Amino acid sequence: MSNFTIHNVVIPQADGYTTTDVQIVDDKITAIAPELNVTGTAVNGEHQLLLPGFINAHTHSSEMWLRGIIPPFPLELWLAELYDFPLLTPEKVYLSALGNAVETLLSGGTTVVDHLVLIPHQELDTIAAAVRAYKEIGIRAFIAPLIQDLPLSMGIPAGGKVQNHEPFFRSTAEILEFMETVIKQFHNPESGIHIAVAPTGTQLCTDALFTGCMELSDKYDLCRHSHLLETKAQEKLAQEKYGCSAVEHLQNLGYLSDRTSLAHCVWLSDQDITILGQTQSTIVHNPLSNLRLGSGIAPILKSRQAGVNVVFACDGASSNDSQDLLEAIKIGSILHNVTDFDYRQWITPRQAVEMASLGGAKGLNMADKVGSLEVGKQADLVMYNLNHLSLLPRTDPIGLLVLGRPSNVVSNVWVNGRQIVADGEITTIDVDGLQKELFNQSQWSVKQQSQITKDMEAHYRFVMGLGD
Amino acid sequence: MSNFTIHNVVIPQADGYTTTDVQIVDDKITAIAPELNVTGTAVNGEHQLLLPGFINAHTHSSEMWLRGIIPPFPLELWLAELYDFPLLTPEKVYLSALGNAVETLLSGGTTVVDHLVLIPHQELDTIAAAVRAYKEIGIRAFIAPLIQDLPLSMGIPAGGKVQNHEPFFRSTAEILEFMETVIKQFHNPESGIHIAVAPTGTQLCTDALFTGCMELSDKYDLCRHSHLLETKAQEKLAQEKYGCSAVEHLQNLGYLSDRTSLAHCVWLSDQDITILGQTQSTIVHNPLSNLRLGSGIAPILKSRQAGVNVVFACDGASSNDSQDLLEAIKIGSILHNVTDFDYRQWITPRQAVEMASLGGAKGLNMADKVGSLEVGKQADLVMYNLNHLSLLPRTDPIGLLVLGRPSNVVSNVWVNGRQIVADGEITTIDVDGLQKELFNQSQWSVKQQSQITKDMEAHYRFVMGLGD
Repeated sequence: MSNFTIHNVVIPQADGYTTTDVQIVDDKITAIAPELNVTGTAVNGEHQLLLPGFINAHTHSSEMWLRGIIPPFPLELWLAELYDFPLLTPEKVYLSALGNAVETLLSGGTTVVDHLVLIPHQELDTIAAAVRAYKEIGIRAFIAPLIQDLPLSMGIPAGGKVQNHEPFFRSTAEILEFMETVIKQFHNPESGIHIAVAPTGTQLCTDALFTGCMELSDKYDLCRHSHLLETKAQEKLAQEKYGCSAVEHLQNLGYLSDRTSLAHCVWLSDQDITILGQTQSTIVHNPLSNLRLGSGIAPILKSRQAGVNVVFACDGASSNDSQDLLEAIKIGSILHNVTDFDYRQWITPRQAVEMASLGGAKGLNMADKVGSLEVGKQADLVMYNLNHLSLLPRTDPIGLLVLGRPSNVVSNVWVNGRQIVADGEITTIDVDGLQKELFNQSQWSVKQQSQITKDMEAHYRFVMGLGD
Repeated sequence: MSNFTIHNVVIPQADGYTTTDVQIVDDKITAIAPELNVTGTAVNGEHQLLLPGFINAHTHSSEMWLRGIIPPFPLELWLAELYDFPLLTPEKVYLSALGNAVETLLSGGTTVVDHLVLIPHQELDTIAAAVRAYKEIGIRAFIAPLIQDLPLSMGIPAGGKVQNHEPFFRSTAEILEFMETVIKQFHNPESGIHIAVAPTGTQLCTDALFTGCMELSDKYDLCRHSHLLETKAQEKLAQEKYGCSAVEHLQNLGYLSDRTSLAHCVWLSDQDITILGQTQSTIVHNPLSNLRLGSGIAPILKSRQAGVNVVFACDGASSNDSQDLLEAIKIGSILHNVTDFDYRQWITPRQAVEMASLGGAKGLNMADKVGSLEVGKQADLVMYNLNHLSLLPRTDPIGLLVLGRPSNVVSNVWVNGRQIVADGEITTIDVDGLQKELFNQSQWSVKQQSQITKDMEAHYRFVMGLGD
């Protein structure tokens, strides 16, 4: 942590931009005004845009190992391919957490929510590996261990067929006990590492698991996270299981709250949207993943009109297959223009930036600490080089950033006042070394369809009415 | 032009990849086989992927000057904003053509179709400026002068209202005479510059203009291009004007052919798709622009199933607002997964690459010359650095390229055997100089809504049933 003063940097104002200075003392913004005296280091902000850091509000970092290789499949079959991957190791989890963080930081993100897939029988080591990575690189991280207490095959509706399912290999009680251990060991917001409770979703979790997580959330003041109604199959399944929508069921359980963020929310009814608004829950929109998996177009404009907090995320890198937040923000903004002829409802670039920053912070219950350029807030800041070819000719800086396809434009990043990126380079870890490891621990290949997918495919096609 | 041999480069095969050598003599691929002797320069292809160059099959290069700044508007109002821009100069046209070409080349493109907006009263100078740019940088270019003979206000349906329109400032005969001058002066495929006939679309062109362009196309063996059914307003307008769809009307005129490429095609009926298939016309899909302008999702899967040739493009940089072909290919592939639950119809990364290369070539009537890695074809080639962090860990190279968000991965580009990009840098023009010019000739601003938009908005909202 060090003190610094950014000079002559462009920042957005209500109706345009201004060039000003910004002072950071310890980990906080202490002044925003022209011609400040230097405190600590002087940073030249000329021809640069300063914005609050964005939040990558939902990812699964270890999916990076499979990006590019899973064929075009809907979620349920894609998951089968994912689970067919040779076992991860904690070392690989460490490397992919770093890789994810690098891409997030270099596309404007300062916080990541990692819905972390756990290696069976090495669950605690998995979490320790991710914590190590995030602490080393210095990104603010919410680690949300991905837990379930029902087997994968139960995630597809039965469609009236009698099916046999193997029980999940851990009991609900064991999982909740594990979660409490994780919280005690790793939850440490001061150091930038938060643990969140995150049952994977109603499709693979019992009510007892949700309830247990709620209790932990209340006891330790933790954020709540989950997948929600990502696919039409999940919508059908909720009706099969509960006779109501998954949103109504979660509301009945009491899981929805102003610190609950829900990934996807593609198959919401109008009533579901009303409930999410009333409970002040946050929708985490993953536009690339929703397209890649053919999940659908989430009702984002409607949700925003109903007052729901909507934020952006990349989702895991094998359903996207990238961790570039600017890409998620661009597509997550413009995608919805085709859902409403009335352009007055469309998301503007400025609104998109606010969703990605202050909205993201709100969804993680830290809107009082980060998410905007305000005196007193923590210095989670990103500077963009407006002189880069991909942001030229000069027009509206935020328009270029959101609607363009900027690359290599992030020049400086600070998280909690600590500099993580300087002159476009990550300063806290050895990125060349990371690149070598990612190269050496992988090989080029063309994946063949897995046996588990073949086993599930016939039933999936039957339930979804797709024919043979 | 020089001879060279690429060693140990990864190329796709039917069911995977192989590492091989590729020899280029003069402007053609002369051998693809392992362990070739070096002819001319040796190029190290280790850990690189070689693909045929992609075709950016529809853009308007001078829109680069307005990227990032036009607010979220549908096409008809967005156009009004575009036309409100202070007059371009030929020098600016030259610079933006270079800028467009740089982004296209560094995202895998070797050919661009520039539906070039003409500066009133400087039409010939506009074209000369673009020709100069494309010759200097060395990209293969189809320059399609954007012509119309009806005023902008006629592009919106009347909706039963009586309206007065100013006549267009040039007669149809003058425009056709101008086109013939352009063709004689600039059409020179040998040098990499093609002229195409390109009435902007049925919404702003008379039948006489289309017919005249067809005659020029036949006389000089030119490709035909046009916008087609980009918006719902255009669909309504065609019914108003012709009592049939715009596709049926173009078929009646005889404009559709195997060298006709049609940008957008969002509002096609099943019958329209059949006609496009029967006439062997090409659909140029501009996914980012269609989202940005809220035009809709083009029926790409249906069209492909009907045997229509579908290719990708960026569209102009103020409706995208980028010229990154890899972005257009990614979004143009995955977007359609939400339009069909049957994932067996979804576009695979390999299909996307073929659409962008061979498909693009087919749409420009040069599939016998470029578009695939085959002995005897012109060397329009792109090499991708598979060791770049954005393409790691190693999985399926084409999957990573298409589904990821690669940046800075294009290492080498040759067009017609001439090297344009080496080690990731453009070699033919001074990119730093270009950057300075783009910076100096522009300024940061927040555009206010133009008067012309305000004038058109009430009628647009009335016709589209949007209320006040």
